[in-house]
Amino acid sequence: MTRYVYPFGAPDDAHDELPDAPALLGGKGAGLRAMARMGIPVPPGFTITTEACAFHDEHHGALPDALDGEVRAAMRGLEALLAMGFGDTSNPLLVSVRSGARVSMPGMMDTVLNLGLNDATVEGLARASGDARFAWDSYRRFVQMYGDVVLGMKPASKHDHDPFEEILDARKRERGVRDDTALSVDDLRALVGDFKKLILERCGEAFPDDPWTQLWGAVKAVFRSWANPRAVTYRRLNHLSSQGGTAVTVQAMVFGNLGDDCATGVAFTRDPSTGERRFYGEFLVNAQGEDVVAGTRTPQPIVGGGYPGAPPSLGDLMPDAWRDLQRVAGELEAHFRDMQDIEFTIQRGRLWMLQTRAGKRTAKAMVRAAVEMANEGLITRDEAMLRVDAARLDDLLHPTLDPKAPRTVLARGLPASPGAATGRVVFHADDAEALAAKGEAVILVRLETSPEDIHGMHAAQGILTARGGMTSHAAVVARGMGKCCVAGCADLDVSYARGELTARTAQGPVVLKRGDVITLDGSKGEVILGALPRTAPALDAYWTTLMAWVDEARRLRVRTNADTPHDARVARSYGAEGIGLCRTEHMFFDEQRILAVREMILAHDADARRVALAKILPMQREDFVGIFTAMEGLPVTIRLLDPPLHEFLPAEPAQIADVARALGVTPEAVAARVTALHEANPMLGHRGCRLGITHPEIYDTQVRAIVEAAVRCQRDGVRVVPEIMIPLVGTAAELSLLRARCLAVADAVLRDEGASLDYTVGTMIELPRACVTADAIAANADFFSFGTNDLTQTALGLSRDDAGRFLGDYVAQGIYAKDPFVTLDRDGVGALVRMAVEKGRAVKPALKVGICGEHGGDPESVGFCHDVGMDYVSCSPFRVPIARLAAAQAAVRAKGGDA
Amino acid sequence: MTRYVYPFGAPDDAHDELPDAPALLGGKGAGLRAMARMGIPVPPGFTITTEACAFHDEHHGALPDALDGEVRAAMRGLEALLAMGFGDTSNPLLVSVRSGARVSMPGMMDTVLNLGLNDATVEGLARASGDARFAWDSYRRFVQMYGDVVLGMKPASKHDHDPFEEILDARKRERGVRDDTALSVDDLRALVGDFKKLILERCGEAFPDDPWTQLWGAVKAVFRSWANPRAVTYRRLNHLSSQGGTAVTVQAMVFGNLGDDCATGVAFTRDPSTGERRFYGEFLVNAQGEDVVAGTRTPQPIVGGGYPGAPPSLGDLMPDAWRDLQRVAGELEAHFRDMQDIEFTIQRGRLWMLQTRAGKRTAKAMVRAAVEMANEGLITRDEAMLRVDAARLDDLLHPTLDPKAPRTVLARGLPASPGAATGRVVFHADDAEALAAKGEAVILVRLETSPEDIHGMHAAQGILTARGGMTSHAAVVARGMGKCCVAGCADLDVSYARGELTARTAQGPVVLKRGDVITLDGSKGEVILGALPRTAPALDAYWTTLMAWVDEARRLRVRTNADTPHDARVARSYGAEGIGLCRTEHMFFDEQRILAVREMILAHDADARRVALAKILPMQREDFVGIFTAMEGLPVTIRLLDPPLHEFLPAEPAQIADVARALGVTPEAVAARVTALHEANPMLGHRGCRLGITHPEIYDTQVRAIVEAAVRCQRDGVRVVPEIMIPLVGTAAELSLLRARCLAVADAVLRDEGASLDYTVGTMIELPRACVTADAIAANADFFSFGTNDLTQTALGLSRDDAGRFLGDYVAQGIYAKDPFVTLDRDGVGALVRMAVEKGRAVKPALKVGICGEHGGDPESVGFCHDVGMDYVSCSPFRVPIARLAAAQAAVRAKGGDA
Repeated sequence: MTRYVYPFGAPDDAHDELPDAPALLGGKGAGLRAMARMGIPVPPGFTITTEACAFHDEHHGALPDALDGEVRAAMRGLEALLAMGFGDTSNPLLVSVRSGARVSMPGMMDTVLNLGLNDATVEGLARASGDARFAWDSYRRFVQMYGDVVLGMKPASKHDHDPFEEILDARKRERGVRDDTALSVDDLRALVGDFKKLILERCGEAFPDDPWTQLWGAVKAVFRSWANPRAVTYRRLNHLSSQGGTAVTVQAMVFGNLGDDCATGVAFTRDPSTGERRFYGEFLVNAQGEDVVAGTRTPQPIVGGGYPGAPPSLGDLMPDAWRDLQRVAGELEAHFRDMQDIEFTIQRGRLWMLQTRAGKRTAKAMVRAAVEMANEGLITRDEAMLRVDAARLDDLLHPTLDPKAPRTVLARGLPASPGAATGRVVFHADDAEALAAKGEAVILVRLETSPEDIHGMHAAQGILTARGGMTSHAAVVARGMGKCCVAGCADLDVSYARGELTARTAQGPVVLKRGDVITLDGSKGEVILGALPRTAPALDAYWTTLMAWVDEARRLRVRTNADTPHDARVARSYGAEGIGLCRTEHMFFDEQRILAVREMILAHDADARRVALAKILPMQREDFVGIFTAMEGLPVTIRLLDPPLHEFLPAEPAQIADVARALGVTPEAVAARVTALHEANPMLGHRGCRLGITHPEIYDTQVRAIVEAAVRCQRDGVRVVPEIMIPLVGTAAELSLLRARCLAVADAVLRDEGASLDYTVGTMIELPRACVTADAIAANADFFSFGTNDLTQTALGLSRDDAGRFLGDYVAQGIYAKDPFVTLDRDGVGALVRMAVEKGRAVKPALKVGICGEHGGDPESVGFCHDVGMDYVSCSPFRVPIARLAAAQAAVRAKGGDA
Repeated sequence: MTRYVYPFGAPDDAHDELPDAPALLGGKGAGLRAMARMGIPVPPGFTITTEACAFHDEHHGALPDALDGEVRAAMRGLEALLAMGFGDTSNPLLVSVRSGARVSMPGMMDTVLNLGLNDATVEGLARASGDARFAWDSYRRFVQMYGDVVLGMKPASKHDHDPFEEILDARKRERGVRDDTALSVDDLRALVGDFKKLILERCGEAFPDDPWTQLWGAVKAVFRSWANPRAVTYRRLNHLSSQGGTAVTVQAMVFGNLGDDCATGVAFTRDPSTGERRFYGEFLVNAQGEDVVAGTRTPQPIVGGGYPGAPPSLGDLMPDAWRDLQRVAGELEAHFRDMQDIEFTIQRGRLWMLQTRAGKRTAKAMVRAAVEMANEGLITRDEAMLRVDAARLDDLLHPTLDPKAPRTVLARGLPASPGAATGRVVFHADDAEALAAKGEAVILVRLETSPEDIHGMHAAQGILTARGGMTSHAAVVARGMGKCCVAGCADLDVSYARGELTARTAQGPVVLKRGDVITLDGSKGEVILGALPRTAPALDAYWTTLMAWVDEARRLRVRTNADTPHDARVARSYGAEGIGLCRTEHMFFDEQRILAVREMILAHDADARRVALAKILPMQREDFVGIFTAMEGLPVTIRLLDPPLHEFLPAEPAQIADVARALGVTPEAVAARVTALHEANPMLGHRGCRLGITHPEIYDTQVRAIVEAAVRCQRDGVRVVPEIMIPLVGTAAELSLLRARCLAVADAVLRDEGASLDYTVGTMIELPRACVTADAIAANADFFSFGTNDLTQTALGLSRDDAGRFLGDYVAQGIYAKDPFVTLDRDGVGALVRMAVEKGRAVKPALKVGICGEHGGDPESVGFCHDVGMDYVSCSPFRVPIARLAAAQAAVRAKGGDA
């Protein structure tokens, strides 16, 4: 029979090892269970499994029959252990009810604290704690939280008023006080009454006094929250499965708000911004945990600043608890073999751990922590490489603000997530999304962020908040996303109503409106007026170490897609080992030659085309000399002309007139030809090698330019490795014809020049037909390069230009796990690629195989390329290091090193 | 060592059996060899193999070293056998040199007769034959033919003058005679001199007197003719391989022009128009074979008309030869087990066979001959089915002229190829092609046709000639093409110069110009003024017999693609066993509902869409009631909406205004939406099941209409078998979501109606991704229907709308063997289809599988569908019988019955 409830924290509890605790108990439940097994102090409790949630989802909200008995038994165990009673009026047991899915989803799921309080037990709590104000404040908070979370009274958006807060504010105004803490027990008691009345009015049912009714209500609310829109959005944005569900952890309450010998805090075992091995966190004295995370009070650092006037550290205030916390942190790192993100409460001087999980960190921290943990012997080098999220390396490779450029700093806040971002000020997540969709860079400015701002944070280049600390929602989420964030910027006033941001500077207030441009320096915590020049990033020694390990571990070569000598040089500096795709069409758009290109296209016969091509030849030759020189000694794969010719045609009357003059015809005749060349589906039209078949003189000219350039470079002492690539091949016959023609032209050039040259001729594999007939095609190919952009378009019947209208719906509904243009569709496109590799190698075992679609820079896709036995991947210059790491990770995984 | 020469016709020659004689010796050489082995009188000779031609092609015109010796040895054998000498001045051996490829290509290859004549041997021939005029006429013809064929003096086009004919005409004018026969020996001798002078002038080299030089010149000319443009065109149009080459047959001349006891003729062992078992042919007394075929003299029937005034039959004139000919015909049919097309010459009363080959015949004849041969026991029923070219059945299924309609007959000719055709008069093949390309139906009118008219005959609906008989070029080729032809219409004058056709009618001359409309009745040989109403064809008893065998032999079911009750009924009358594809989009274009459709598309939300769809629902329901009723008892597969919605949008301002009014918005707003919905590649865009995912209410409405219609029909006692088909599925998830939604809607309707219904939900497989993931997709599909039109577009990356620009080049260069939109690309698309069938059946062995692309009516593709194990094919109504036959042929072939 399925077991749905797992207790933890009883000292004599053996806690059997579970095969996949996070899947069953959620990350939070598994962490608590692990800590309890290690003897670390956790308030005892029990976890209801994710399987119960799955049952709930599948049975339209019903719970398994056995659950009631199991929960009651666990609660009895808890009562016995703590010598308290759930609902007991003299010594009431209060519990927290928290969600926890397999993968941590910060802020996404709802939590209820202080559950078990009612008009009777509150008095017991007052007596037991000796603090009636505390008891009634806890009760007031509980009723409010229960109304919000369980009874669905939480406002749909932050812009709406929370009705409980309105009542609270009214009471404070009435009493003439600013802080909640200034309210009396009677005030709090009255507030509880008002809150309950509101609940009855709004919900048509009374607030449940019975603790068991409260508990089941909260459990079901947690289960329901799994499918709430914010959670769904989070999972979608983070490519998390919607399967699985959440567990519910019911845990005895401990209190950080019982007095000045109490505290609550969150911390990381290493610095999540830099990865440095130092204890890093914040705490609040006499507070509940939610106060830290929500950012409503700015917490103080656990480790003191050490400068005069710095707030006291935890060690200063509670040395015993601080010692315990350091010891626990060490034990947790040793156990989990990773940097931990922990939550704790100190109740009357005693430390209680409430959570541990792998800490989110910046890309920089990810690299440093991984390298240092490997050097410390905590993990192996293979594990270190797997610990770095390859996709996140992007953050390190993009330019940072030029430190020498003068900057007008408007305000300083916390350096919550490093990097730099420039964009237009917006104040609402929806606005951020809308403006970003139009191609504008935006900075989302909020008093504080909350889970419903996630989509706006995604859309923004950077996030700026006026409140909240280094572990506030904004900071944690921004670091996870690799977005720059400046948080807790107290010198800023944000008015949503006026749509204004006011910086109180030494020179007086500066007011910014929606749309004004600012720059954030996330590493320094600065808010800067206007845009700022940026410089290439400086990569540190940890990076260098990691990449050395990576290059040693990987089997896949990494090349770049580059069409210019500049791009080639950038890519080479990032470790590119050749060019996998040099597109020649971009060269055709050059202002100097587009007229000749148009003449060529609009010419009525091959002879006229040849006249135009003769003008292009010397320019093409110079292009290739530049690229060969930049890539000296490394292979350069040049793709012959690919796009449909009408892409080059003039649209403007002036351009049409130019072409008409050059061709000696009327503008009307040119316009008519332009119209005639229109295609219904250009993606499937007259392009790629079809141009080579019907207009052979174009490819002849390109091959001549390549070979002449190569010969010239060789004479200048530059070693060249040219690879001529024929695009869009669908049949063996196309390649056979075009290859023969390439060889004939190349041989003629070499004969004329009296030179020799090693070069190869291969093909892009980008049509399903090419995949299924790859054996026949391989006979005439020295190499295959998978053009997975077009292969995705054709295999899925999906135009990249048009898919925007429904691709969002598709990913949201889980029809595609990910955007197939970003991550290679392994089951579909991948199956075709695998088939082509196998068929090609079957007839030509030494066939060189690579990928040059944009998937070549996507870590998951690179893993596939490794698995399928490719020789290399090729990607854009900035993604070369990502591909190198992903290649190493694939190699490590393949040898069974997955940690 | 390769042997290049095979003699035949020596009485003591054993003639070893050759494994594939037609491939090695060509059809003509193999036929002669076979006849010789059977003891049938053939003039002896020898055949130079196709391998020598291939050598010639591969070695830039050089011949194999061994060939000279082999040819000389064979010639010595011939001389010894006939007691004549090649080049001998007293008893000269003359030979014909003829081409002959594996597959007969009528008129495509060149022939030289009377080879061996020169100024010395002509005197020997005169003495030996006792007829100096005959000898000098033969010499004159030989020089002319040699100049034309071997020395390349033949005019490039019929429109140009033949320089030899000009000299001949001048001589006749000078002598004041009309016929060649009225020229004297001296005239002929002078002509030979003039011809030789012309050759020297034009070619810069003298006519070769040496017979061996003549022979090698002729052999090489035959080899060269394999690659001449007409031959290449013929092979392309008939999908014949350009590999193989032609053989050369060198054969001792026999003469049908030595006097009135001589004749020459061509015949069929059965009637090639009707298939009736009767000897059928024509002959000319005292003539050479070329005279019959070329149509310059109108020959007389071999079997007399039996009516008073009919010309004498061959039996009347030469009873012994006629008896021999009948015997030979019987032997040949028995040997080759097929109707034969034979050529013969009677020299001084003795029959010589010059050729035998399978006779080309009309579709009607094909069916009758096959059925009768099977009934006679000559072939099996399986062979009979294989003997009928399924593609040709089309000829029988198309309408014929209404016999009751009044007709103005302009002229009567020979009923050379049956059927009816109406079109505009054109006089030149190029003109026919040009006008046909503009969508005009044309009738090609010629004095006589020749191989260079082939492309015009292809383009024309029918062919009309003023000269030539039932076995003239026009007649033979037209029958082969299944085109209607009236030949030898002596009452017509054709003037190419004036572009006029004059019919000498009883009422006086009627002059028709280019562009005037005429109708041909190919079955009666009538030329009719204007257009005539047509009626459905009457299919005869042979047809009925054949189709009964077909239905017994085939395993594949044959359905039809039909969108209307009318099409459904037509298809059913042709044997359709259900509808394999009922497209619903055509219904949306109906004038009554297009406005509602546009409202639906342009609506801003699902509710507004529902309002519009509610208007469409009852109309859709009526559509389905009509189709279900027409197809009572048979399955009907209905495809839910497939095309991108913008196809339905208004383009004209008036339509835009209508929609704007209906939606209550401005025309500008509608125009803007129309523009916004434009797609770059609509083929790969927002269409098919993607509409179902994003606009579920559309599919909901269609499913409701289907189920409501089915319930209504059931109540009316009409048995319905609805199959709901979801198009463009690429992932299992799409089908799973949409299938669930279909079932939900259908169940709701059935619940409301209190009815039950057997229906299935399946999918089109038309994307490569669907093929490679067909196992996952099959889990949610009751059936697969391959949409090979779109699968071809996506697998080959080839837009059907745009491919016209290069597909011609591609087929011409052999890159695609055939147009992949006509005949399924077996290696590419076929491999994907096979994969999908295998994967689908692996998880669901009973999965029903069919095809509904246009390939379902192409015989070769139907064969593939059988081989791959499909359950049915679906095609347009008129192609249903073709598909039935093709299915039977595939079944017969599969059991090894290929003959």
